[in-house]
Amino acid sequence: MIVPRRRIMRLRVTRLRDRDRAMRQDVVAVEEPLEIRVRFAEGDEWQTRSVSVTMRTPGDDFELAAGFLFAEGLVSDRRDVQEISYCTGDEQQEYNLLEVRLAPDASFDPGLLNRNFYMTSSCGVCGKASLEAIEVQGCAPVADGTLSVRADVLKALPDALRAAQPVFEKTGGIHASGLFDREGALLGLREDVGRHNALDKLIGREFLAGRLPLADRIVLVSGRTSFELLQKATMAGVPVVAAVGAPSSLAVELARRFNVTLVGFTRATGFNVYAGRARVRT
Amino acid sequence: MIVPRRRIMRLRVTRLRDRDRAMRQDVVAVEEPLEIRVRFAEGDEWQTRSVSVTMRTPGDDFELAAGFLFAEGLVSDRRDVQEISYCTGDEQQEYNLLEVRLAPDASFDPGLLNRNFYMTSSCGVCGKASLEAIEVQGCAPVADGTLSVRADVLKALPDALRAAQPVFEKTGGIHASGLFDREGALLGLREDVGRHNALDKLIGREFLAGRLPLADRIVLVSGRTSFELLQKATMAGVPVVAAVGAPSSLAVELARRFNVTLVGFTRATGFNVYAGRARVRT
Repeated sequence: MIVPRRRIMRLRVTRLRDRDRAMRQDVVAVEEPLEIRVRFAEGDEWQTRSVSVTMRTPGDDFELAAGFLFAEGLVSDRRDVQEISYCTGDEQQEYNLLEVRLAPDASFDPGLLNRNFYMTSSCGVCGKASLEAIEVQGCAPVADGTLSVRADVLKALPDALRAAQPVFEKTGGIHASGLFDREGALLGLREDVGRHNALDKLIGREFLAGRLPLADRIVLVSGRTSFELLQKATMAGVPVVAAVGAPSSLAVELARRFNVTLVGFTRATGFNVYAGRARVRT
Repeated sequence: MIVPRRRIMRLRVTRLRDRDRAMRQDVVAVEEPLEIRVRFAEGDEWQTRSVSVTMRTPGDDFELAAGFLFAEGLVSDRRDVQEISYCTGDEQQEYNLLEVRLAPDASFDPGLLNRNFYMTSSCGVCGKASLEAIEVQGCAPVADGTLSVRADVLKALPDALRAAQPVFEKTGGIHASGLFDREGALLGLREDVGRHNALDKLIGREFLAGRLPLADRIVLVSGRTSFELLQKATMAGVPVVAAVGAPSSLAVELARRFNVTLVGFTRATGFNVYAGRARVRT
């Protein structure tokens, strides 16, 4: 039985456009972890292996699992997949954990999984567990501090970032993270094809220079904001994260829980504030 | 010593705009794997652990490594990082493999790394090795086949995708992958906050329905194309991959090696062809 989970979440945001300022309903795409387990036969024994935890938008989860296994070369024949089902039992995680049962004669090499792995920051298999897990990892709420940012400073950030982006100019195909002071002066810029890498570079630069936490700084990211990006910024103690694009549901939840000001759709004409409204001055 | 590696790559593309058609130089952002190793003391013993292989744009690699370790909670104090250096010896991989040496008294818990891992498709630590690794994994060149696509069909794809995207409409913040036939009719659409997930869902749908390989199909992705997206499409035997955004260098190299037609900056007014020009009819 496939139960559609919600793909969008409604929430209240502060919308600032020119001189208008209003609380209104907004809608963001849901981001939740999904753990994929594979149950396979090895000789006479059935074994279960967790093969992936990915942050995804709920819906079409069985297809996601099948597509992932196929695209990664772990399963090659339709007949190898006997059944896909959610692991029930824990209500909170009910639709965030699924098992792909392979045919008894399917060849499955879990060794492929160990060759290269990549630690994700998504621990636990529901949004709430993910937020709790990063606390264990050392993520703490950002202090209230003294930083407050004028709306016109935020509006000017995307143009300042774009003007300073050397590779984007040439390729049109790269993400950037910029570090700004409270007056909107650009202090650092890093680019990468991966948006999480661009932010890692920027934070690494400050870490190596002994300048963490970034209690007095604004970070602007060129794309959308996800759980992972907010987690990285929060670790670095950034009080204000602005993005050119939209946030995911879990990015908003993380920002609210860890006292981060989260701004989205940042333009010269305005922006939305999803969390931490108090730091934005109009 | 930090040797800047090239961040952009020049290549020849076919550019189609209205009635113009010309080969010209274009520039794409470089995408190459980076392996990060940590050398740490456990009692009296020094140990080395690989903690991440990530696809990144070369440059600021030491910052990337430091930022990654800090943001993931693996290292918390500047003094814990004693030295960062490239692992030399293998010329091809010279700047794709680095080691972070921690202070003898730094606390480092490699156990954190095993809790959740995520298999990446980037095997090997240079672009060439990554391409070879996916062959081992089962990636084979796409057959020439009979598919040829009219330029005006390609130009119409982004509008067709956008018109059918239910969640994007509401949130402005989600990626999509669309499956089209040679006449540009939309056969399937999947959305996700993660662009690789949107493609996994689409491929999984076809896999579960027993319709692979997708020898006669066009896939359109809403964002940029990376190594990972091209690898997934190639596994599914897709001959034509079009994107609204730009490709990375490794996406282009993969497409050329595996006989995939790769189109970028797809608009109603034109597009660029980065690989597999023969399948595009004007």
